Amino acid sequence: MSKVIQVGNISIGGNNPIRVQSMCNTNTRDVVSTVAQIKRLEALGCEIIRVAVPDSVAAEAISSIIPQITIPLIADIHFDYKLAIEAMQNGAAAVRINPGNIGGRENTCKVLEVAADMGRAVRVGVNSGSLERDLLSAHGVTAEALVKSALRQLEILESVNFSNYKVSIKASSVPLTVEAYKLFTKHSDAPLHVGVTEAGTKRMGTIKSAVGIGALLLQGIGDTIRVSLTAEPEEEIHAAWGILTAAGVRKRGVEIISCPTCGRTEIDLIALAERVEALCDTVHREITVAVMGCVVNGPGEAKEADYGVAGGRGVGLLFRKGEIVKKVNENELLSELMKMINADQ
Amino acid sequence: MSKVIQVGNISIGGNNPIRVQSMCNTNTRDVVSTVAQIKRLEALGCEIIRVAVPDSVAAEAISSIIPQITIPLIADIHFDYKLAIEAMQNGAAAVRINPGNIGGRENTCKVLEVAADMGRAVRVGVNSGSLERDLLSAHGVTAEALVKSALRQLEILESVNFSNYKVSIKASSVPLTVEAYKLFTKHSDAPLHVGVTEAGTKRMGTIKSAVGIGALLLQGIGDTIRVSLTAEPEEEIHAAWGILTAAGVRKRGVEIISCPTCGRTEIDLIALAERVEALCDTVHREITVAVMGCVVNGPGEAKEADYGVAGGRGVGLLFRKGEIVKKVNENELLSELMKMINADQ
Repeated sequence: MSKVIQVGNISIGGNNPIRVQSMCNTNTRDVVSTVAQIKRLEALGCEIIRVAVPDSVAAEAISSIIPQITIPLIADIHFDYKLAIEAMQNGAAAVRINPGNIGGRENTCKVLEVAADMGRAVRVGVNSGSLERDLLSAHGVTAEALVKSALRQLEILESVNFSNYKVSIKASSVPLTVEAYKLFTKHSDAPLHVGVTEAGTKRMGTIKSAVGIGALLLQGIGDTIRVSLTAEPEEEIHAAWGILTAAGVRKRGVEIISCPTCGRTEIDLIALAERVEALCDTVHREITVAVMGCVVNGPGEAKEADYGVAGGRGVGLLFRKGEIVKKVNENELLSELMKMINADQ
Repeated sequence: MSKVIQVGNISIGGNNPIRVQSMCNTNTRDVVSTVAQIKRLEALGCEIIRVAVPDSVAAEAISSIIPQITIPLIADIHFDYKLAIEAMQNGAAAVRINPGNIGGRENTCKVLEVAADMGRAVRVGVNSGSLERDLLSAHGVTAEALVKSALRQLEILESVNFSNYKVSIKASSVPLTVEAYKLFTKHSDAPLHVGVTEAGTKRMGTIKSAVGIGALLLQGIGDTIRVSLTAEPEEEIHAAWGILTAAGVRKRGVEIISCPTCGRTEIDLIALAERVEALCDTVHREITVAVMGCVVNGPGEAKEADYGVAGGRGVGLLFRKGEIVKKVNENELLSELMKMINADQ
């Protein structure tokens, strides 16, 4: 079990729910756009937000952003430890620093001093693309090198008794990412921020993130997740909740179970399932709804679902927990299903 | 290591590549539509195709379909063992039977006799929705029940020395699916057809399949995969190759690595990455292409990529294996990248 740390008003690690986070792709200096994006992400279930802090103007903008949002904000820092300090002084609940480019013990300790004084958290974010040179030449881009980079940084944190930290160890290769996180858990109980870096476009990036983050979650590894997509961050939140739901560790809203269409299917199941999914976006109970294309096998195969429909040749069956409730015409299937679900609210 | 079996001209198991399969959603009796769909799927990388065989007319249609396709065809059978026999007699390379509904030893043995005589394969396809009643009441819907259902059926196959079989053990719950496959490998070295059943719509079904199939592949489990989506089967093939690529077990074409956009990004990276992905659909070499939004970090972070671009403020860098090749204007970035990739063909 990982340790628990505090990022603003959110606890991460231990038995806490696995937290969903994303990163703004707005210019942080543009406070209006950044706040608007964060509020859209909050509404979709984003629990922690990160922003890039490339300069002092961006660090200063944080003080204008924070009063307008309700979730903790993390400042993403590369190269310049002074920006990490400014970001915390302007209200960032945490800073992400990269051991590969923050510049050694002295700079790190200056960041830690401010973080400790102000009760802020630190993420040590190792990335396969920016490993220290000596580790690279000794080990190449391997799980060993990634873990050593993290542990070396943690020694600095521990040496000054700074314990409010979490760790990420990301690579764009999924097997390497999974291997590195697993290896790290043998050396540390720090809470883990889990993700695959530079995962790619919405299509491929979602798959890579699902394979990598999902494999780790199924092994009990991961305390907060970020899906990195070359896409709007809203897509990252959708994918993150999908992965948490799939891995069975957390749920948000309705889970749709639907059978693949086959030669036995006698209704337009693809359209029906898509419409059920869309209508259920407004149902906030954590239920499972089955959309099956076969009146013979459907109710039985989906008996674990809370509600379901099975359609065939013009008629459909409504069922609840595998028990058939009634038979309706195909064109009433969708409205009757939603009526049944909403009646139980 | 799993055993090797033969499905038509394709070997499955052992050190063979993990095979990609899908299932037609056409009416199998409609030979023209079914053949057209199979040929589309073949072109996308489908290596084995399954069709539903709900009646004798469908079983007969198989004899017209097979001469027009080049990949092995598997007949999907429920309830009626006679349809399995007819399908094989009409040329099916394998039949999928469900221990929960095929009707016991006697019927199974009749199927096996024909399969053995004709050199056909059998998939024992256990499904959490159609478990035998006694297993259900003894164990509930658990990994134990699923594995016992499979092993009970395998005893019948082994008792008549039939060994050209593979096994699937699917549930719509991802953690249950993964647990069941892992448990099964402790009891048998049969090659495994891996998938998550009733996974859902394209969006959620892809994520569930990636988490479940991906987690198993990363542990070395799985010899052939099927992504089940409530979507056109073309989507299943795209997702299957995506999962194989992400898990690092097989590649087809170009893998795009692209960084998430952030406050440092100064070009329209989402559009650029999507366009690179689309243009690379016609590149059949197995290469990695990086699309990065930062001229400072980009080339270094993506040094494992074969080719890459990093864009910023009107200009971009082209790089190869982390080495900068040249600087170009942003509007030439895409054409120059493709020129560099194609020059190496």
